[in-house]
Amino acid sequence: MDFSAELRRQLARVERGLDLHVPAANSRPARLHQAMRYSLEAGGKRLRPILVLAAADIFGATDEQALPAAVALECVHTYSLIHDDLPCMDNDDLRRGRPTAHRAFDEATALLAGDALLTHAFALLATGYAAQPPLAAALVRELAETAGSRRLIGGQMEDLLAEKKADANADELEFIHLNKTAAMIEAGLVMGGRVGNASEAGLETLRAVGRHLGLAFQIIDDILDATADSTTLGKTAGKDARAGKTTYLKLHGLENSRRMAREHTTLALTKIDALPGDGTFLSALVTNMAVRAK
Amino acid sequence: MDFSAELRRQLARVERGLDLHVPAANSRPARLHQAMRYSLEAGGKRLRPILVLAAADIFGATDEQALPAAVALECVHTYSLIHDDLPCMDNDDLRRGRPTAHRAFDEATALLAGDALLTHAFALLATGYAAQPPLAAALVRELAETAGSRRLIGGQMEDLLAEKKADANADELEFIHLNKTAAMIEAGLVMGGRVGNASEAGLETLRAVGRHLGLAFQIIDDILDATADSTTLGKTAGKDARAGKTTYLKLHGLENSRRMAREHTTLALTKIDALPGDGTFLSALVTNMAVRAK
Repeated sequence: MDFSAELRRQLARVERGLDLHVPAANSRPARLHQAMRYSLEAGGKRLRPILVLAAADIFGATDEQALPAAVALECVHTYSLIHDDLPCMDNDDLRRGRPTAHRAFDEATALLAGDALLTHAFALLATGYAAQPPLAAALVRELAETAGSRRLIGGQMEDLLAEKKADANADELEFIHLNKTAAMIEAGLVMGGRVGNASEAGLETLRAVGRHLGLAFQIIDDILDATADSTTLGKTAGKDARAGKTTYLKLHGLENSRRMAREHTTLALTKIDALPGDGTFLSALVTNMAVRAK
Repeated sequence: MDFSAELRRQLARVERGLDLHVPAANSRPARLHQAMRYSLEAGGKRLRPILVLAAADIFGATDEQALPAAVALECVHTYSLIHDDLPCMDNDDLRRGRPTAHRAFDEATALLAGDALLTHAFALLATGYAAQPPLAAALVRELAETAGSRRLIGGQMEDLLAEKKADANADELEFIHLNKTAAMIEAGLVMGGRVGNASEAGLETLRAVGRHLGLAFQIIDDILDATADSTTLGKTAGKDARAGKTTYLKLHGLENSRRMAREHTTLALTKIDALPGDGTFLSALVTNMAVRAK
């Protein structure tokens, strides 16, 4: 398998899906839909929707079946970035190398565009899988619970609380990263598996892959924030240290953090080998994420 | 029928449902769940969830069947109020007679509590109707489309844009009120009808009732903002005029506005009479809304 070519193909599927399954920029009110598309089209790695497609492929779903789920997940991820960037949260000016939504538009529009992307995700699951209500309901439940107050939003809340004290501990850091980062990566794989009608055992294996990949991903994010520059990252580098934020690096040091990222990557790869279908692309993606420079 | 007693009974059902179907205040992270419950428990008329219960009753649903839908709708309504009150939106300090969420907590917590209530609504529909996936998927679709970028959020966006210019016209005002206010009232009745397994014709009648009730409700809101005091309203009065906002009063005058409210109320009542079940309570509620003082 040519990994780069396959990755480009999956990325093209995601971009096509986003264009197909998100309201047009000129829909009324145009300013709102422009802001939604501005943030969605800023690009990024598209890791989460690609994981949906990769897992669906392993379980033999057709090309069209997985797209609404992939787009819904990317809508929720993008909403979370828009809201995280707002002045009352991280107050960030730069995201994926471009002005953040509230800089390019204004705060109120950014807030509403985030709300609208989150809401659209659920509308899309309900309409995209209208012919298979049990699948639609299962996908809504997976996404809503993952993105909810106990996981994604809960992780963000604890992250904000941890910033206010000097000494978040390893347990608190694990809660934040399991929920703020790993949860959505798990959800991507599980949603892809559901679209492909995976067994409960298959779904649990996918969830475990996602957990390890998510933790490796976050540890590497912490490492890159400390070691790369803003131009390479496409977002402000060195923020964590300046904010005195508790990270894997701060708690465990650079070498231990690198070792932990390697261990989680290895565990994810082992789990992928236990899946019934062809996990070649997913394994290559996990390996690629472990050696990324941004 | 003793309307006051029946209204109290329906209110008690809603309060019980909110307590039952929203995560406990001490769930981790506690601050987030406290903020969610703080805003939900501020009370208010509970018009939207009561409409769910009233419509479900007309179509013969049991007591328990309608509660998750009613709570989900109130979660979405409450999220929209929390976000509307934020400094970058209406910047309001008072809501239902108490400090707004960002005053009682802080802006970031209020933002996340709103996000979490919106997300919880969909989780609740998916879990509360897990045994009836077609109903779950239909309710998710109804709520997500109503609360989405073309309706609730779209109405809020156009409302913000209208505030920035001196002369919003009657068409723009109608778009705002149909989507910002009437949409969620329509959704309440339609969701209740769906829970009660109403026919498509029944659902369309409920939707029309909701549209007229919603427009009457908004016109009366505009009238009360101009004619009542903050203590009676439980929120800041006279805001529209001070903001130079286009309202029914500004466009049509007080007497014409009162006439329009009466006409929409009459149309709603006529439609209720066309429903197959006992619409006594719903009719009394519509009449009551037309003569309310807050």
